[in-house]
Order: sequence, then structure tokens, then C-alpha cells
Amino acid sequence: MAEALKLAWQVKGTTFPNPAVGAIVVAGREIVGRGATSPYGGPHAEKIALAQAGERAKMAALYVTLEPCCHFGRTPPCTDAIISSGIKSVYISTMDPNPLVHGGGLHQLRKNGITVHSGLLSEEAKSINEDFFWSITRKRPWITLKLAMTLDGRIADEAGHSQWITSVGSRTFVHELRRRHAAIIVGAATLRKDDPKLTVRFGKRANPARIVFSSSPRLPATSYFIKNAHKTRSIVVIADGKEGLKKKNSKGLEIWYIGKSTEEKGLESFLQTAYSEGLTSLLVEGGSAIASLFMKHHRVNRVYLFYGNKLVGKGLDGFSFTKGLPLSQAIELQDRTVRLFSDDVLISGIPVWKNTEEQ
Amino acid sequence: MAEALKLAWQVKGTTFPNPAVGAIVVAGREIVGRGATSPYGGPHAEKIALAQAGERAKMAALYVTLEPCCHFGRTPPCTDAIISSGIKSVYISTMDPNPLVHGGGLHQLRKNGITVHSGLLSEEAKSINEDFFWSITRKRPWITLKLAMTLDGRIADEAGHSQWITSVGSRTFVHELRRRHAAIIVGAATLRKDDPKLTVRFGKRANPARIVFSSSPRLPATSYFIKNAHKTRSIVVIADGKEGLKKKNSKGLEIWYIGKSTEEKGLESFLQTAYSEGLTSLLVEGGSAIASLFMKHHRVNRVYLFYGNKLVGKGLDGFSFTKGLPLSQAIELQDRTVRLFSDDVLISGIPVWKNTEEQ
Repeated sequence: MAEALKLAWQVKGTTFPNPAVGAIVVAGREIVGRGATSPYGGPHAEKIALAQAGERAKMAALYVTLEPCCHFGRTPPCTDAIISSGIKSVYISTMDPNPLVHGGGLHQLRKNGITVHSGLLSEEAKSINEDFFWSITRKRPWITLKLAMTLDGRIADEAGHSQWITSVGSRTFVHELRRRHAAIIVGAATLRKDDPKLTVRFGKRANPARIVFSSSPRLPATSYFIKNAHKTRSIVVIADGKEGLKKKNSKGLEIWYIGKSTEEKGLESFLQTAYSEGLTSLLVEGGSAIASLFMKHHRVNRVYLFYGNKLVGKGLDGFSFTKGLPLSQAIELQDRTVRLFSDDVLISGIPVWKNTEEQ
Repeated sequence: MAEALKLAWQVKGTTFPNPAVGAIVVAGREIVGRGATSPYGGPHAEKIALAQAGERAKMAALYVTLEPCCHFGRTPPCTDAIISSGIKSVYISTMDPNPLVHGGGLHQLRKNGITVHSGLLSEEAKSINEDFFWSITRKRPWITLKLAMTLDGRIADEAGHSQWITSVGSRTFVHELRRRHAAIIVGAATLRKDDPKLTVRFGKRANPARIVFSSSPRLPATSYFIKNAHKTRSIVVIADGKEGLKKKNSKGLEIWYIGKSTEEKGLESFLQTAYSEGLTSLLVEGGSAIASLFMKHHRVNRVYLFYGNKLVGKGLDGFSFTKGLPLSQAIELQDRTVRLFSDDVLISGIPVWKNTEEQ
């Protein structure tokens, strides 16, 4: 199963809106088939592994990180393929929360005389697809927030410089984070200041969409973002105009209008549009205004806070709410992990809000 | 030697201005004597251990965490006691940087036919007395800075509340830090806001002096600090008056004047007075103004930055320099360690300054 999980991680970020799944066929003590989810529309992990195993799948065991599907989507149900392959037993890591599947795949297999075990390494299997599981049950995009701060909580020095607060180790990890998401979000201020590429540079494979939040559609024409809008899906989200209106310009740039009633309404309108456009997981990369916008409106599922080995004493605060939270209602991180990179400390967790008011 | 180091840690903070030392006498495979430095004026670790061993010290081995002294201070040289005890071999963890001793103790023992080994567990032995080693060679107090911040670098919420950002585990550790220092420093704003006791509550043993930095001698008469000035040495440092002037009031409160020429000159004047008054190690506990004062003037030897599991979005910044450092000249931490408490992350290290200008 560990081998199957490894295959799943390898394709994470390339399978939207499908989950990333890995599958292994074991005959005797030998691995005779390996598969991982193809990009949307292509075959699922189980089918690839079974095809590779061919005749040797007969009486063999299948290890799969997610419950096989039992419904027709873009591809026929995987349970059919498993049943006809002659597989004797199936080990499933975690169940599919998709209401079209949940428990149905398992039931289908058992009905056909296949022994089914579930729960093996399920924690890791869940974490690979935590975004998918969350998104499909709530019909909303999963949102990850990443911020690189100094030891004193600044994301830039007084002159606005932020390159580099963190070391190359964490920056490589950020590219891994980008790879795992359907889209990356930054604010227009960050675009103007840093002109970020918003691409996946290390371990390239996926190509997340790029989203810029702006108050107006006028963005620097010479920016990497605008100049390369035709290469990667690129979207400008504008807090103005008719809520829900979408346009596309001659350079391939999409413009989404979210209206200008309230911050929260606009944000919600954006999230609905993003989900309906297949952007089921979003990585918010800052700056301060965008990070604070998502955070204060409780629209973050997981945070990655990097603390570089730097202290500047004054500069741009990473988080800057209009109205600070009283300590008794501070946001806390659940399920927290701490990880060390060469020079940086990464604190990650699931934010929990205690207050109900807006900040 | 590990046993001797344990004894040294136990008395850390009670031996100022002497270093904390542990000693063990081993005869055959049995420990026949144990000792740790007494408070100033009392016997040193070696003498206590030897006295406990008595006749059994003959031909035995002595393990001591610091090179034995060979000069007359408040007590006669330890080397004499070792030589007359009949000890056969001495294991020394680390050499004494005190110019009155350095290498002399070792030489004295060897001259008298005792086998001497040095360097065993020397890293830990050095860290116990890093303040002492630094202070005695430079004739200045060692300065530790401790700050408890939220994940976004705030030491209080907008209303000024800071109780509690961190969990009880880190707060217990802070009392251990207090115990190890000769004096604790806070700003007058912290005194007014939190009315801190500045005592050692857990593992009580030492009683560090309490120092408040203030712009005027008028401090709240009902504060714990003022009301208990007769119990523990209590000092108000005032950035005014005649530099170097010291007074003591009827309640036992000491008032030190550091003049008002420049921040840096005043700070230096305070440090000279503190050293001459036997306060060889200082723990700066904030708030923001005091932490920034010491940090921006490069007067910090080690920092302990606690990050509680809280995010408030706005509040009092932990560090607030008049002029921020450019990222290229940011303060970095050397010899960095990261430690986890139940809910908090502690990043500790030795600050390194790249710039020479004042902030």
C-alpha cells in the first residue's frame, strides 16, 4: 500500500477534478502491475495497473489507495474492470466520500465474491486527497494559504522586498504545493511588486491556473502573468462589475467579476465560480491583503506558515486585519505539524475560528 | 560526567557571579561524593564532593564540569583541596575562561602527579555557563531576550491583552529561564499593563533581581514590583538624570540613572553598572519597546522566541524598530534550535547583525 500511496503522490495535482489514486497488483510476492490516475478523461489507477498485470491479475491482490468507482463518469466503472480481471482480493486504503460512490464500490466487489479489506494506511491516503474529499462533499474549492514570514511576522521589509525571506529548501516545497493545487492566487500588489511567474518550477508536471485579485482589470502589460496568459489558464478577479460575469480577452486572459457589494459576498461569488470551473483546490500565496481577506472571512482549510531565519524589526505585516481579534477569539491551528527546512521553520495546520463576526 | 552536569544545572542561577559547577568523586565503580557550587562565598563543587568522599577520595577519580580554580577568591583554591585529598585522576569537562584560572588549575594538578583529562561532554558544560564564559571575558553582562508572540508576530492583541499567548508548558520553561539569570528586565509599559511578579514560580530556588526600564521614577505604587521591593532586589532604570547616579529609597527600591544623551549611550551605561553590581546575566522579557531597544543596539546574546498557537491579525508587534532593517541586512539566528511545547514552537539562537548603523 505504501507503494500505491507513492504512485498517488506522484500524480497529485494532475488529476483535477479527480482525486489522485495509486494502485498496485500483487501476484504471489511480486508486483505485476502499477497505476496512478491519468489526467481528467484518461483511465483510472486500477485500470492501468490491471492492464499492466494482464493475465497475471487472476487470483492476485489489488492494493488501491481509494475505493474504486462504481459509476459511469468520463470512464466506465473501475469495479467492472476489477471483477472481470479475476482479482481475488482488494485492499482499499480509504473510502470515497463522493456520494455517487461511497461504499458502493466496496459493495459491488463483495457481491461478486471478491474479498475486500479497507483502512490500510488510511491516514496518509486521506491526506493526499484531503482537498478532494472536502471539496466534493461541500461543493466548494479547498483553500490552502501559504505565507513566508520573517521571525517577527513580516512578509517584506520596509522597502517592500521579500526576496528572499526563506531559503531554497522551503521555496522548493512551495513549488511542490503549487503542483498539488488546481490554481494559485495572488493579489495585484504582489503582481506589481514581484512579477511572479506562478509556475511550477521544481518537479514540473502540473500546471495550475493563475489567479490575480485586483480592483481593476488594468494590470501591467509587461508582467509575466499578462504576457503568458495564452500559455496557462490565467484569470483576473475583479471586485467590481456584475457579480458572476465572465469575459475572455484576445490574449486568452479570463476576467471574472464578483461585484462590489461586500468583501465576503464577492469572495463567496468567486469561490462558486471557481468550483463550477473545475478549480477545486486553490493555493493563496499572498500578499498581506489577500491572505488577510481569506483568513478573516474563514475561507482557509489549511495554512502553511514559513518562518525564515530573518528579523527586520519593521516592514509589511503578514496578516493585517481591519480589526484585530481579541486573544480569547484568536484563530488557532488544529492538527498542527512543525517541519524544519535548512534555515526555516514551517508551521502548518487547519485554522479554527472562534468568533462569528467579521474582522 | 553526565551526573556532574546534572548537579551543575540544578544550581544554575544560584551561584552568581560564580559559574555553576558540578563534581562527582568515583571510587572503584561507586559514586562516593557529589557536589555543586554553593551560593557566592560558600564552598565550590569540588570541595563539597571531596568532603563527602572523605578518606575514600584516596586514589579515586574526580569528575568536574569546569576546570578547578587555582587562585584565592572568597574561598581558597580548589586545586589545593584536590591535591591534599589524594585524588589520582581528574576529568575536566571544559576549561575556565577566567583569565585568573585558564589552564592554571590543570597545570597545578599535573605538577602534583595527578592525571588530568579534559573535554568530556564539553559542549553541554559550555552551554550551562555560556553566560558566565561570555561575561567574564568581556566584563559585560550576558543578555538573553525572551518574547512570546502569536503566529503573526504580535505580543498582545489590539486591546493590549497578552495573557496567555503561549501555553503553560512554555511558561514553565520561562520560569526556568528566569531561574538561570541574575536579573529580569521589563519595560514600564509592561509593568503598568500586566503587573508581573517577575519571580521564579516553578522549581523555585534562585531569586533574580528585578529591573524596570522607565522614563520616570513614578511607577504605580500598588504594583507588585513596588510593593515587594524590600523582598527581592528591585531596580528602576531611568533614562534621565546624571549618568551613573544610583539611589535607594526607603522601600528598598534602587534607582539607577543612565542620562538622556542617546539610547545607545544610556544602554551602555546601564550595562556597565549592572556588571559592576554583580548582575552578570540579564533576561529581557519585553515588551516591544524594550525588546526592540536591546535588539536594535546589538545588545542580545541569545533569543528565545516563543510562537503560541494563536493568530490575531492585528495587535502589538513583538519587534518594532524606528527604522526597519532591509532584508539583506536582517538579523539572523546562528546555532539555532527549534523546540516544541504542547501548543507552542520555540525558536532559539544567537543573533547575528549584519549592519553597523543604528535602527
